[in-house]
Amino acid sequence: MALSTDFGPATALSCRECGTRYDIGPNFACIECFGPLEVAYEFGTVTRADIESGPTNIWRYRSLLPVPVDVAAKPNMQPGWTKLVKADNLAGELGMRSLYVKDDSGNPTHSFKDRVVAIAVEAARNFGFTTLSCSSTGNLAGAVGAAAARAGLDSCVFVPANLEEAKIVVASVYGGRLVGIDGTYDEVNRFCSELIGDSLGEKWGFVNVNLRPYYAEGSKTLAYEIAEQLGWRIPDQIVIPVASGSQLTKIDKGFKELIRLGLVEEKEYRIFAAQAEGCSPVSTAYKAGHDVVQPVRPDTIAKSLAIGNPADGPYVLDIARRTGGAVEDVTDPEIVAAIRLLARTEGVFAETAGGVVLGVTRKLVENGQLDPDAETVILNTGEGLKTLDAVSDEARPAAVIRPSLDAFRTAFAN
Amino acid sequence: MALSTDFGPATALSCRECGTRYDIGPNFACIECFGPLEVAYEFGTVTRADIESGPTNIWRYRSLLPVPVDVAAKPNMQPGWTKLVKADNLAGELGMRSLYVKDDSGNPTHSFKDRVVAIAVEAARNFGFTTLSCSSTGNLAGAVGAAAARAGLDSCVFVPANLEEAKIVVASVYGGRLVGIDGTYDEVNRFCSELIGDSLGEKWGFVNVNLRPYYAEGSKTLAYEIAEQLGWRIPDQIVIPVASGSQLTKIDKGFKELIRLGLVEEKEYRIFAAQAEGCSPVSTAYKAGHDVVQPVRPDTIAKSLAIGNPADGPYVLDIARRTGGAVEDVTDPEIVAAIRLLARTEGVFAETAGGVVLGVTRKLVENGQLDPDAETVILNTGEGLKTLDAVSDEARPAAVIRPSLDAFRTAFAN
Repeated sequence: MALSTDFGPATALSCRECGTRYDIGPNFACIECFGPLEVAYEFGTVTRADIESGPTNIWRYRSLLPVPVDVAAKPNMQPGWTKLVKADNLAGELGMRSLYVKDDSGNPTHSFKDRVVAIAVEAARNFGFTTLSCSSTGNLAGAVGAAAARAGLDSCVFVPANLEEAKIVVASVYGGRLVGIDGTYDEVNRFCSELIGDSLGEKWGFVNVNLRPYYAEGSKTLAYEIAEQLGWRIPDQIVIPVASGSQLTKIDKGFKELIRLGLVEEKEYRIFAAQAEGCSPVSTAYKAGHDVVQPVRPDTIAKSLAIGNPADGPYVLDIARRTGGAVEDVTDPEIVAAIRLLARTEGVFAETAGGVVLGVTRKLVENGQLDPDAETVILNTGEGLKTLDAVSDEARPAAVIRPSLDAFRTAFAN
Repeated sequence: MALSTDFGPATALSCRECGTRYDIGPNFACIECFGPLEVAYEFGTVTRADIESGPTNIWRYRSLLPVPVDVAAKPNMQPGWTKLVKADNLAGELGMRSLYVKDDSGNPTHSFKDRVVAIAVEAARNFGFTTLSCSSTGNLAGAVGAAAARAGLDSCVFVPANLEEAKIVVASVYGGRLVGIDGTYDEVNRFCSELIGDSLGEKWGFVNVNLRPYYAEGSKTLAYEIAEQLGWRIPDQIVIPVASGSQLTKIDKGFKELIRLGLVEEKEYRIFAAQAEGCSPVSTAYKAGHDVVQPVRPDTIAKSLAIGNPADGPYVLDIARRTGGAVEDVTDPEIVAAIRLLARTEGVFAETAGGVVLGVTRKLVENGQLDPDAETVILNTGEGLKTLDAVSDEARPAAVIRPSLDAFRTAFAN
């Protein structure tokens, strides 16, 4: 109870399935029904002016997050307030009227994970954890390593051993401990759950396991920023990548909070979910009309989305259906083509996950599920520099020549 | 003359050596004395409030740059307003009292080059150039490719063929033409100068050759941002990497402008220049007490600083001496150690150029040239993801194990 003031407007944890409420604590599953816990709030009055006078990072929304009022003053990575790029060139190529790219590669470690980790770090501090940990498909490991270094915490992160080289380096360069696991992400994740129950894991805050309810709230800031950057307006349509599905559910939660608090006008919006064909359990369930998501073994270049057993899959299905959206998937070649299309039209070099989102967007326009005349926001959640292999075969010099005009003429004469 | 309104407060080009003035145009060298041309201004009244109400990118300083007043509305990369990180952990390790890292890896293509290219794009538009070009050690090529894509211009960039893999990919992924040159950066640069005199180069704006006077002004925004982010105050000391030396001279120019316009209080400040030992012509001249910089053939892992014949070398010497600063250099192993130190203490993963700056800072503290009690800003101008090789030998998993508690215990039992 005494701790609750350190979590700002957050007042409890609440089971998303059965509604049972719990005190704020390092818990993530309901002991009644095993449903996932999420943060419940009692918001005070929040005005646009309050927010606009805040820092140019996620802490401008601190009154909507489970963090103390002085959060911005503690050592942290200051994530967020990334660019919302008006993508007129890309819109032209896709035959769309009004398209924006929310480009989260601008975060400190160049993925949206900096947002969620920043909230988890605050929870870890409040609960007295001294080691920050996670299971990760790569981006999260880097975000945890960097945030722990800045905050003065130890870190130990667990990743599938077959990750991209760049993500391995980034996960270990910050001086924490990186452990490669021979297995899929889902196996890494299960291992972390075991570790929490073991004495080895005492004093460890696993950002996406025992700190997950807090961590997940960080994704709401994507919704807040998009609305504020559009001039306090929710877009008509949004396309979001799905790994665990948490990000999508929290963006929906963020939009609903903005409406409830009167910060934006109430409106209908449609949420679309994007997966890679090589790891498309939610898309498969959506197309089959199922409510249950059948786990798969991932095989795709979009490794940051390679979660075969997505915890929030059923909620994604529900939101896509309720809002009039859809769930779609694209092949690896379509992902690569989309990365190149975004770079060529807007100068944004996306990670494979960004390629998934744009590839799906293109497909949804072509098959008529996305309205090309409605205001649309698509997410790029990561940085192309971390998944170079996806494009390095084609992104080569047009020629290598000696430094002479003759050599240039010979190479490029028509 | 009619064009001058399109360049905002810029009124002329002026020779830095003999002072001869020229109309605004795509020219870079004085026809009287071959000295470099730079932009001259007549500033109107500029207030802190004007600037603070501007966008969170370099265009908040548009009234101090050679750009039209509506520059922010045109398709551009919106660079700048990167984080000034209060580096208390790092300061503690170095025995310093007040240390900040200006982290330009937060720019759209993750180096400070986005700043200078954004100004050059405006000049290219004004002069009717249809192809954006450059000679580059890597970062600039990516920045030009991305900015041209966003602006709807063609691009053709020239790089030494032996560049880092990541920089090759980034230079070509945006769909422009990348040409590798068998030679050093200085040979690439000379080749570009030839190309400008040739019919092949008509309608080509080389951002760092015939657009150089405009381009170079973009670095002033680093000075503006640092001062504004400190609460409108110039730091006591600043450490800046030196490739061509242009950035350092323009940061000095920016500070002087802020003082002249009354935006900050007048004060003494000391400017320190950082080079890699394997390409240290300015440092060598400084230590020998020379005014002339002798060209060298670069051999260093800090490829983005590998300019053996730095155009602004003599000006760097002059500024370091005039302000009571110094020029220093560090070895490749010192660069790597500094990259790891910055990552471990502050969660900032710097490019080799950032390692050069921190390595030199550490050396200057140790040899007593930098005052550890004075407010100090150091620059990280690029992103570690682009120079992974520098750290990849050491940044490895602590272990690769099966997903079991037993395997974890075996690997990490003390």
